[in-house]
Amino acid sequence: MFSSLKFGGQQISQLIKTSDRCVYSIASSHSNHFHYNAHRTTVSEKSLPRRLNLYKSGDSNLKENLSSSLLRRNLASVTPAAIGKAVSKDERREFMAVFPDIVRDLTETHRQTEIPDVTKWYSKVLQYNVPGGKKNRGLALILAYRMLAPQSAQTPEKIREAQIMGWCIEMLQAFFLVLDDMIDGSETRRGRICWYRNPSVGLNAANDGIFIESGIYQLLRRYFVDKPYYFQAIDLFHEATHKTIMGQALDLLTAQSIAKYKLDKFTMDRYNSIVKYKTSYYSFHLPVALAMYMAGISNAEQHRQAKTLLLEMGNFFQVQDDYMDCFGDPAVTGKIGTDIQDGKCSWLAVVALQRCTPDQRKILEECYGSHDPEKVDAVRNVYNQINLPHIFSTYEEDSYNLIQTHIQQMSGGLNLNLFFKLLDKIYKRDN
Amino acid sequence: MFSSLKFGGQQISQLIKTSDRCVYSIASSHSNHFHYNAHRTTVSEKSLPRRLNLYKSGDSNLKENLSSSLLRRNLASVTPAAIGKAVSKDERREFMAVFPDIVRDLTETHRQTEIPDVTKWYSKVLQYNVPGGKKNRGLALILAYRMLAPQSAQTPEKIREAQIMGWCIEMLQAFFLVLDDMIDGSETRRGRICWYRNPSVGLNAANDGIFIESGIYQLLRRYFVDKPYYFQAIDLFHEATHKTIMGQALDLLTAQSIAKYKLDKFTMDRYNSIVKYKTSYYSFHLPVALAMYMAGISNAEQHRQAKTLLLEMGNFFQVQDDYMDCFGDPAVTGKIGTDIQDGKCSWLAVVALQRCTPDQRKILEECYGSHDPEKVDAVRNVYNQINLPHIFSTYEEDSYNLIQTHIQQMSGGLNLNLFFKLLDKIYKRDN
Repeated sequence: MFSSLKFGGQQISQLIKTSDRCVYSIASSHSNHFHYNAHRTTVSEKSLPRRLNLYKSGDSNLKENLSSSLLRRNLASVTPAAIGKAVSKDERREFMAVFPDIVRDLTETHRQTEIPDVTKWYSKVLQYNVPGGKKNRGLALILAYRMLAPQSAQTPEKIREAQIMGWCIEMLQAFFLVLDDMIDGSETRRGRICWYRNPSVGLNAANDGIFIESGIYQLLRRYFVDKPYYFQAIDLFHEATHKTIMGQALDLLTAQSIAKYKLDKFTMDRYNSIVKYKTSYYSFHLPVALAMYMAGISNAEQHRQAKTLLLEMGNFFQVQDDYMDCFGDPAVTGKIGTDIQDGKCSWLAVVALQRCTPDQRKILEECYGSHDPEKVDAVRNVYNQINLPHIFSTYEEDSYNLIQTHIQQMSGGLNLNLFFKLLDKIYKRDN
Repeated sequence: MFSSLKFGGQQISQLIKTSDRCVYSIASSHSNHFHYNAHRTTVSEKSLPRRLNLYKSGDSNLKENLSSSLLRRNLASVTPAAIGKAVSKDERREFMAVFPDIVRDLTETHRQTEIPDVTKWYSKVLQYNVPGGKKNRGLALILAYRMLAPQSAQTPEKIREAQIMGWCIEMLQAFFLVLDDMIDGSETRRGRICWYRNPSVGLNAANDGIFIESGIYQLLRRYFVDKPYYFQAIDLFHEATHKTIMGQALDLLTAQSIAKYKLDKFTMDRYNSIVKYKTSYYSFHLPVALAMYMAGISNAEQHRQAKTLLLEMGNFFQVQDDYMDCFGDPAVTGKIGTDIQDGKCSWLAVVALQRCTPDQRKILEECYGSHDPEKVDAVRNVYNQINLPHIFSTYEEDSYNLIQTHIQQMSGGLNLNLFFKLLDKIYKRDN
């Protein structure tokens, strides 16, 4: 489709990268939309009861004060670690099989009528940007629907509706990524050059991004206008969009704050706010909340409980992502981290600031947010002196155990196995 | 707020402008969001009956075959030419008085809680980008509400709701402009530098633009969630957004087509499609359709009739805009036209291609879409040889008369005076 790069990304990227540190920090602080990792286990889901509620707090008397090792032994036979890769592969293939219909739906309305060129272009925009990722937000919705809906609502027709809703979430993700890559001057995404860097795109990527977003509401109306959950679905998309944008704004303002306040704004409270808004709502809360409404679960208390837990998982997920940005293997993660250079308020920076000596803080203040390789190395050295890999490792295990405990403590009849499964998908991930 | 330009607009603008012709055409083809002109008459609206339906087709037997001069004499005493500037000034002031509440509503939810910096930033984004224009889309909604709602629904509370809905449309407009100015590398907007050109903004303007958009749905939910027209309002905003984006895409693809197809795609059909999608829906249909639902008018046939007429007015409006781009006085229009340079599929280009000699067509094909001043002059010369100013003048009068006739022919009880008034606001405008 595109052969060479004459305009757009290259120059814009260079332009941004040769700008001063502070501005680069701003321009580069929008990119962190992350993905769940793939399933890593092999036993088929079918070998487990579909609605396994053995571990509800009331049933098992498991409480937070149980030792985490005991807790984990108890859960070993049912946690999602034992749930199947094979099923997931089928699910993924079936999900992909729906995508051509999505593109057709979004383009046929106007095809061969007034604006044929636009429908062709829109088709390209969708195909380039929507289906190429891990699709784990969309798949999480389908998984949640399967695990929450009564058996009578597991018809092919209903599953297809969940798949379509899943594509709506993937389109939300694509909308953010198209804009963020342009803002950040990123070079590649999902193994090929970012959309805006294609020679016939450039900054027009902004229009293509919002084109993808507006398609979400076209699909919602087409497929769900008569459903009892239509209003909630629209509302959830609006809310997730608004919160993600606020999180991105907070992220960039915090990076920008270095120029004036050094690293004084890099607190754990601030970090948690950024993550909650920028990542957790649309990546964890949105898919499950949509699935709950689709499965007929509209009980406010159940939604509140699920939300609390899902935001907690989102935080866990982002801490991992921040760790991998610096200490992950680019060959596995598929990206070369630039959080230090970009002056991002990352978990590593915040923890380092909590634990550093006055001399180490001075180094961080002098070097954080710079593209100078020596300064980047100086920051890494401080991270290693503080032994952040070990701190992270402990934190990851403790958080995993804590979230498991919180899942146990949920009441009200939700299928806890869903949450174990979602948690397992991200525990000890390496990409 | 901003003192100097270190990054963003200047360089990006230069970058785009030094690129080759075709790419510049693409990058510059998103900017045409236009404004109604201000009221130009003086008699108070109060001197006219509020719901003046004298000229309904059925009542007056006026048909399309009436001569336009006769028609215009008949209408002289009631057309909006006789309707008041003073009222409009009050309306404008009252509308502006609501804006601080809008900003407060959109920022107070999160103020002093988790993300104070974001609410401060959002407040800046809104104040810089939303209220500075002519606000005629928002004012058109208020006018339409006043002229369509029954007297019992003209309470201060209801008028305030119309004003809030008016700000939602102004936010839609601001969202498009923030993105378009960035895409186009524009320099100024509403008398000051474009948002993205402020040194602390740059390409992050993309996030600020969608921040404004997502605020629309926050306001709609806050104020209208319990109204019977809530669903229709959301749907109208989604539809207008989607159509505007499609129009922008068609506009840019058409400009881009010059490289491959010369001017072969510049047909009147294509022009009409671009205008309908890019301008007419959100500028003319959206304000009146919203006002109709708010006034309790949900009759499908009445909406269909209004839509047909409003899209016709949108076309009329855009033809004027295209004319002024080349032949208007920049001191009055407030902008220096670049349609020729940008390779835009403008009304002038399309009409010129319909009427030119083979030699003139050759000149247009060689020169259209270039920034070379000599080539731009060559295009202007062809326009003048064809006498486009005269053709436009005739077209403007004929269109005005035709739209008046179409208003006469409306049936079904809508207040025709609203449409006369809207039409008069744009007839013979010079900015």
